[in-house]
Amino acid sequence: MSQSIAANPDRLLPADPGTRSIARSLLERVQDLPIISPHGHVDAAVIENNTPFPDPAALLVSPDHYVTRLIHASGVSFDKLRSTGPNAPESREIWRTFVEAWPLFEGTASGYWLRTQFESVFKLAADLGEMSADASYDAIAAKLVESDFRPRQLFKDFNIEVLATTDDPLDNLASHKALADDPTFNGRVLPTFRPDAYLNIAHPEWAAKVERLTETAGDGASGYAGYIAGLENRRRYFVEHGAVSADHGVPTPATLKLDAAEAESLFEKARAGKATAADRDAFEAHMMYQMARMSVEDGLVMTIHPGSFRNHHQPTFEAFGADTGHDIPFAVNYTEAIRPLLQDFGTDKNLHLVLFTLDETVFSRELAPLAGFYPSVYLGAPWWFLDAPDAMLRFRSAVTETTGFSRSSGFIDDTRAFCSIPARHDASRRIEASFLARLVAEHRVTEDRAHELIVDVVDSSPRRVFKL
Amino acid sequence: MSQSIAANPDRLLPADPGTRSIARSLLERVQDLPIISPHGHVDAAVIENNTPFPDPAALLVSPDHYVTRLIHASGVSFDKLRSTGPNAPESREIWRTFVEAWPLFEGTASGYWLRTQFESVFKLAADLGEMSADASYDAIAAKLVESDFRPRQLFKDFNIEVLATTDDPLDNLASHKALADDPTFNGRVLPTFRPDAYLNIAHPEWAAKVERLTETAGDGASGYAGYIAGLENRRRYFVEHGAVSADHGVPTPATLKLDAAEAESLFEKARAGKATAADRDAFEAHMMYQMARMSVEDGLVMTIHPGSFRNHHQPTFEAFGADTGHDIPFAVNYTEAIRPLLQDFGTDKNLHLVLFTLDETVFSRELAPLAGFYPSVYLGAPWWFLDAPDAMLRFRSAVTETTGFSRSSGFIDDTRAFCSIPARHDASRRIEASFLARLVAEHRVTEDRAHELIVDVVDSSPRRVFKL
Amino acid sequence: MSQSIAANPDRLLPADPGTRSIARSLLERVQDLPIISPHGHVDAAVIENNTPFPDPAALLVSPDHYVTRLIHASGVSFDKLRSTGPNAPESREIWRTFVEAWPLFEGTASGYWLRTQFESVFKLAADLGEMSADASYDAIAAKLVESDFRPRQLFKDFNIEVLATTDDPLDNLASHKALADDPTFNGRVLPTFRPDAYLNIAHPEWAAKVERLTETAGDGASGYAGYIAGLENRRRYFVEHGAVSADHGVPTPATLKLDAAEAESLFEKARAGKATAADRDAFEAHMMYQMARMSVEDGLVMTIHPGSFRNHHQPTFEAFGADTGHDIPFAVNYTEAIRPLLQDFGTDKNLHLVLFTLDETVFSRELAPLAGFYPSVYLGAPWWFLDAPDAMLRFRSAVTETTGFSRSSGFIDDTRAFCSIPARHDASRRIEASFLARLVAEHRVTEDRAHELIVDVVDSSPRRVFKL
Repeated sequence: MSQSIAANPDRLLPADPGTRSIARSLLERVQDLPIISPHGHVDAAVIENNTPFPDPAALLVSPDHYVTRLIHASGVSFDKLRSTGPNAPESREIWRTFVEAWPLFEGTASGYWLRTQFESVFKLAADLGEMSADASYDAIAAKLVESDFRPRQLFKDFNIEVLATTDDPLDNLASHKALADDPTFNGRVLPTFRPDAYLNIAHPEWAAKVERLTETAGDGASGYAGYIAGLENRRRYFVEHGAVSADHGVPTPATLKLDAAEAESLFEKARAGKATAADRDAFEAHMMYQMARMSVEDGLVMTIHPGSFRNHHQPTFEAFGADTGHDIPFAVNYTEAIRPLLQDFGTDKNLHLVLFTLDETVFSRELAPLAGFYPSVYLGAPWWFLDAPDAMLRFRSAVTETTGFSRSSGFIDDTRAFCSIPARHDASRRIEASFLARLVAEHRVTEDRAHELIVDVVDSSPRRVFKL
Repeated sequence: MSQSIAANPDRLLPADPGTRSIARSLLERVQDLPIISPHGHVDAAVIENNTPFPDPAALLVSPDHYVTRLIHASGVSFDKLRSTGPNAPESREIWRTFVEAWPLFEGTASGYWLRTQFESVFKLAADLGEMSADASYDAIAAKLVESDFRPRQLFKDFNIEVLATTDDPLDNLASHKALADDPTFNGRVLPTFRPDAYLNIAHPEWAAKVERLTETAGDGASGYAGYIAGLENRRRYFVEHGAVSADHGVPTPATLKLDAAEAESLFEKARAGKATAADRDAFEAHMMYQMARMSVEDGLVMTIHPGSFRNHHQPTFEAFGADTGHDIPFAVNYTEAIRPLLQDFGTDKNLHLVLFTLDETVFSRELAPLAGFYPSVYLGAPWWFLDAPDAMLRFRSAVTETTGFSRSSGFIDDTRAFCSIPARHDASRRIEASFLARLVAEHRVTEDRAHELIVDVVDSSPRRVFKL
Repeated sequence: MSQSIAANPDRLLPADPGTRSIARSLLERVQDLPIISPHGHVDAAVIENNTPFPDPAALLVSPDHYVTRLIHASGVSFDKLRSTGPNAPESREIWRTFVEAWPLFEGTASGYWLRTQFESVFKLAADLGEMSADASYDAIAAKLVESDFRPRQLFKDFNIEVLATTDDPLDNLASHKALADDPTFNGRVLPTFRPDAYLNIAHPEWAAKVERLTETAGDGASGYAGYIAGLENRRRYFVEHGAVSADHGVPTPATLKLDAAEAESLFEKARAGKATAADRDAFEAHMMYQMARMSVEDGLVMTIHPGSFRNHHQPTFEAFGADTGHDIPFAVNYTEAIRPLLQDFGTDKNLHLVLFTLDETVFSRELAPLAGFYPSVYLGAPWWFLDAPDAMLRFRSAVTETTGFSRSSGFIDDTRAFCSIPARHDASRRIEASFLARLVAEHRVTEDRAHELIVDVVDSSPRRVFKL
């Protein structure tokens, strides 16, 4: 008898038979709704150009730091996993290394997404562990060269309605424009304004980027005024090209209101290379306040992703670059940090501020109370290490009793792994169904209302919060 | 078929049929026990005078910041929700706003309490969402003018045995005295000594209140000595009027032992308006130590409620005052903060110190270990954002394996919403039954012992901890 | 009908019948595997000498601060619980005090272990609460004098394969050697290098211990060089006597790389009695870095146990000494603290670094991400207050979705209570079975794989992580 758990219609649903049966019917209600992905890292050019996918390893292993980090933890050097660079192993070799490490992924979110993809996207005949590495490699490789197996067809097959990318403020958004203008493409591929490198004066390219920004978009002004104008203008450009949000990856959620003279003085100090660590913090906090101010004016939803110590292992960063699996979360405090921003914009109806965390302790302690009072504040879905079944249930349990279901962002896949998008959204829907089913089984919500709520959570929330 | 979940006898009980059946029988054991409410915010005068309840909105919506904050978060101005002040909307208008917002409360603790009240106290014929706003308004309004629907009758109908209020140290406690002396009233309405404004030198009325205290009760002494004597005397006055506890709402649980000269010098600096923020902290921490010292002497149970950033949104505070739904919790550390107090009084049998938290992380990390060693320390029940079904289960799971069932305070409703008291205690009993039922089902506690434990937790604990 | 829950074959297994049935079959797979205990506090001499156990109170009550602290919290002085010292009560009297307090332990981990011991080791005819104190005392006392009831026989009966002790660096390890050389003893009793008092310059015996270390093992060198050589030599001595790990109880997980001159200067300052608190912190952090460096060289697994405020209540410490139940945890942050060590050794295959915590918040936030990237980092099992059923389930839920099952240490009993070892390992195996059974029931792991995983978690993990 087959044990294909990836194909099991009850996967991720609660074990109690009565609750499971409720969950099944809730899931059915949303299973065919289109995918709305308001934040992620897919490259728009790949969709524009309908670029064929690369080989199995270059598609599914090497670029996915969720996958490579756990293999790395087992003692395998990144040298054996990267598909580019001098002396990179052959793709099939990387794949063998991956398949050998496959048992490590039991119980993990990454393992779940991969297994679901293998089953439903790549149609593997058996679980990866039951085939030879070469057999699975060949099966996937064969799929990848099928004429139908291209980004645009999958976009349609995956039932994606909206897909947001993440873009540099000076990006010309040509791919987004081409897709919007293409009558043969029906999806929406939206840019997202991501100005981290322009706001963090410790970023190695800060000065160069700021100079380019000011020259390009600063309305002829120089210095701080040109910088602010540049940001405002480029945000407007993004809005004109369909952007609905601006995303901010910051160490902490600190915000600060400086007067123009103080801000300008910090800015000039930074340009002169004389800014201290405290200056960096103050300037970024001030710029977060400015970003909120601009959001009120131009309507871009503001999303904040704090609390990750980036590139924790310096030697790995030097050898293999950023996004190689060693961004490590730390404790975050929102209550005081976000207050200066909320003083002025927290009740402004133009601001939608979505707060994410990798520190689960703030869900019940800070974020639910904030989102339960401030009209501008929304709960970011569990993110990164936390977009996994148990963690998503902990999130709902932590926030719902304080804020109900109306204050959360809807699922955020945040992925660069295009083929994993359906698996991720499917998992999220199963967990929403499981949580609601428990409330129904415990007579806390009626089954009728639960059927409305799951649609709201899966579909209406992201549309409402991200102004889609 | 009706879907009245508020009337369902299994509401809040666990879904697994075997566990639910155990929970049912445990619940039965305590369902009819009297309500003991050792901390809350009902006004004693309302009971003394048997004041008729106001209209539905002024009773159930406007004064309840649990309710208004979530409506506020949805974008409704407090102007549309407050029942007093210039241009306040008509009661029926506020009620319509509330009913429109009712779906927001699905899954929340407030929604649960309201729904239960509508069903069991106001006898609404259907769920609020299935009636017109006017119909529910009229039904409740009709109930409110019934001659039986008065505080004293409800006090009896609700089976309340003890209800503690929260009072200013200079309150004359006339209502409490009148009730105690009234042979027609059988309940106990006890005052609680709440000296926050007298201990926090940053409180806008600190100087004036301290002066009044010293004059009124300072035994003729002036300065710090008169202040301390005044507090001691007023505590004694409260004890004579039936008080069993003194309650402290403080930013942090810091405690500090200063010698008299240092304390006096801070006190004088504060009176001269020259105290710094550090002075404020030190003085309050010192006074918490003093409060414990006085508790040892006069026997008042000491309860501490730290960790809330009060009035987080300044513009709302300025327009609508305190207690308007934007007190936001933050991280708390008890281990070091409470140590100075515990050094001297932690093993004193006269001290009962009940520690509350809005930061769930301290339940397993700090509070359970503290209460599992110090005879004076008790675990405050999950409070405020945390007195909800899932949060109460998380609390029991976090503390029981370290401290068992003997070290917790019993349920604390902490409410000013009189009509919600039975719903809150009922919810708590259902959750205690659910937690214990799981331990029975997992063969961790026998069913016989569980029947004893649930009585202990619901009834004996609050009597023991609050010296009732 | 008997209600012996300690003998129930389904104890601790989940209530849902389907999940329970899966858990049963998983448990069966590991129930008879030998016990591997790579960290604990049993005295090797007791096993070497096959010392008869003392009386019931001196064996099971007085030395176990898990037990005495909860009785103390109920208001019983330690005077009534200690079996040694002037005016210590008679053993039978202590036992009566304990039996009277027995109901306090309902729902606690300690209660579970004790009840299981009474049932399976001491063969009591009924639950403790159903016998008179004298009857249980006599029954246990009779067992304790049976000729078979000796450490060596129990070691065998308990099916212990490996038992690590905790030892001072200057211990001659004679008992370990005698046991290793004894052809009649088949178990492995391994020493563990525990140098806390040599690394913490605030330890009252630091200077004396360091002097002895340098003289004994410093290769004739003096000062810092002799100190480092002494530590290296003694570690080597431990390795030669079978040690597999070095254990570190530190306030925080801080690590720091100082150059030799800085380290030497702090060392001399400390020897001169002039070190500040900051010096203490820096020196210990530096020595943690050095310990990791030595582990890379000599292969000893490095375990870190931070985050406990030792001897929180000074008067109790003065009267009754250390380890009397008032070590209270506090918040810990690993991400920044451990980074200096990981920069240099985090990817070194010779280092196995096992990180423990009493602050559950770091499980999902910091430890799982660290162990999911660094080959050297392993997740320490839930420890001390957290090695209890619910807490162990929370641990698995918090870490598995990020790191899977391959990165954790396996169960650590950390006990000095020899007779409780089987109960503790049995509880852990039941919880592992329960967690995996849920994943199977939710179709997240196949039942076949779960059968492999439980063996890995219970048996292969501790062997792999502790290099056994």
